[in-house]
Amino acid sequence: MAEYSIGVDLGGTNLRAAAVNRDGKMLDKIAISTNLGAGRDTVINDIVTAIRKLRRKMAGGSLVGVGIGVPGFILIEKGMIVGSHNMPGFDNFPVRDEISRLLGSPVILENDANAAAMGEKWMGAGRGVDDLILLTLGTGIGGGIISGGKVLHGSVGMAGELGHITIIPSGNVCGCGNHGCLEKHASATAIESMANLLALGENLSARDVYELAQGGNDNARRIFQSMGTALGLGLATLINIFNFPLYLLSGGVLPAWEFFAPPMMEQVRKRSFTFRNAETRIEPAILGNEAGLYGAACLPFQS
Amino acid sequence: MAEYSIGVDLGGTNLRAAAVNRDGKMLDKIAISTNLGAGRDTVINDIVTAIRKLRRKMAGGSLVGVGIGVPGFILIEKGMIVGSHNMPGFDNFPVRDEISRLLGSPVILENDANAAAMGEKWMGAGRGVDDLILLTLGTGIGGGIISGGKVLHGSVGMAGELGHITIIPSGNVCGCGNHGCLEKHASATAIESMANLLALGENLSARDVYELAQGGNDNARRIFQSMGTALGLGLATLINIFNFPLYLLSGGVLPAWEFFAPPMMEQVRKRSFTFRNAETRIEPAILGNEAGLYGAACLPFQS
Repeated sequence: MAEYSIGVDLGGTNLRAAAVNRDGKMLDKIAISTNLGAGRDTVINDIVTAIRKLRRKMAGGSLVGVGIGVPGFILIEKGMIVGSHNMPGFDNFPVRDEISRLLGSPVILENDANAAAMGEKWMGAGRGVDDLILLTLGTGIGGGIISGGKVLHGSVGMAGELGHITIIPSGNVCGCGNHGCLEKHASATAIESMANLLALGENLSARDVYELAQGGNDNARRIFQSMGTALGLGLATLINIFNFPLYLLSGGVLPAWEFFAPPMMEQVRKRSFTFRNAETRIEPAILGNEAGLYGAACLPFQS
Repeated sequence: MAEYSIGVDLGGTNLRAAAVNRDGKMLDKIAISTNLGAGRDTVINDIVTAIRKLRRKMAGGSLVGVGIGVPGFILIEKGMIVGSHNMPGFDNFPVRDEISRLLGSPVILENDANAAAMGEKWMGAGRGVDDLILLTLGTGIGGGIISGGKVLHGSVGMAGELGHITIIPSGNVCGCGNHGCLEKHASATAIESMANLLALGENLSARDVYELAQGGNDNARRIFQSMGTALGLGLATLINIFNFPLYLLSGGVLPAWEFFAPPMMEQVRKRSFTFRNAETRIEPAILGNEAGLYGAACLPFQS
């Protein structure tokens, strides 16, 4: 009986689930909209329904377990989300145990960026690498640290909050209480805020700013210069701390690589003796929004 | 036949060696001056002589191996020191293999701060804790990361260069090529530079500045305020990255805890959501300058 696991990626917009075998082959996939507005119980029901649907389609196979990647700080042993502004009903609710009870299967809860890092390690740009860091550049900046082939969790599961590295001590205010967090200066949201400050246009997305930069708009290019500089500063600190061989970047900002990577690399070269003396790659991740699915599916095979 | 290992701590001033058994009991100890001025071969000869002396005194015991903690960036697989300004003759020299050849025993080379972190984990303030970080506040700031009970090395052994976390992007110039490294704002040397800038006195040591602060000198207290703020900023970033349960501080600046710890803790509380939500201790290390000896001696038992 062929073994498989089910990975779930619960995002603010989409809820994805996939059945994956031990070799990392995606056997089947479901994607629906996340209905956060309908409340926690509806979302949990949607997750359970998606998993059951996959389980029926995989009849004859043996389900090893379910991994679920969710946004926010995770208490890994308790299987709970804490301090999540995006998913208010989930805060401090035993979401892992509730889903496990409804399914009658073991469930592992994981932070979405940690899951994405694990996915890239398993089937993406980090194949064959045991130590890597992934930064997801989106609304915020998520981080996942893979050390010795496994997610680094820290004592309760909050390790890897790399978007909250302080890069400018008196920089922009962050929801976490800090000033100058990496994610306030290098995320898609940060790009949009800068575009707003520079009056580049009404409600521009990071993608719009990228297109303006491509068209030769100096201010749009300056925005990526600033964002790349901030990102490079954060990466240099990470390289000095970890001396890992691989740092991956993912997220919607990635197409603008041509604009933000040069100032990013300039900072890294300048600020990291380790980068200049130990082989270190900084590269785009390759699995896109399926990284989290692969990673979530990988977890039951590891445990 | 009782097993023991020999740990060596090679500092710029002192060369210490000790025989330690598997329970962490220090059986014998030698301390001499480090004679860097006499050149590399003399220093290596002094190390080998000290180890042989201990080996003779331990006749009847079984030597498991030798661990040596040295300052500077380490290439762990090659057993070499690189980029060390303090030990010029050692740069890129196969020091581990040379000592091993002279002794006829296996030798492990380790960065001194990594060894000290391991020592505190084994027999000091980190007993019973598998994940901790040590910052040594001295001439520079060294760092050691213990993850899952072992030193985190990264790909070549340069992990843990925590003195080179950028805390002020346009801060003081550092020998590593960066600006605003933690060690340029929170080491003993940084305290001495600030005392010099504020014209507190001629060639004051960090200890002198501490005594002035104790005597009520406002500028001396401001210096520790600044140093504690910088340290807190670095610690907050580390806590956000690692979510480890324990962060230890050691070094000659430690007695000034009463002056630098309050601003340090203020920064940590403000800048780390993780600190506010996961039990996290920041404490003085307890083994003083014997931490490196214990840690170096621990390594052969681990390998």
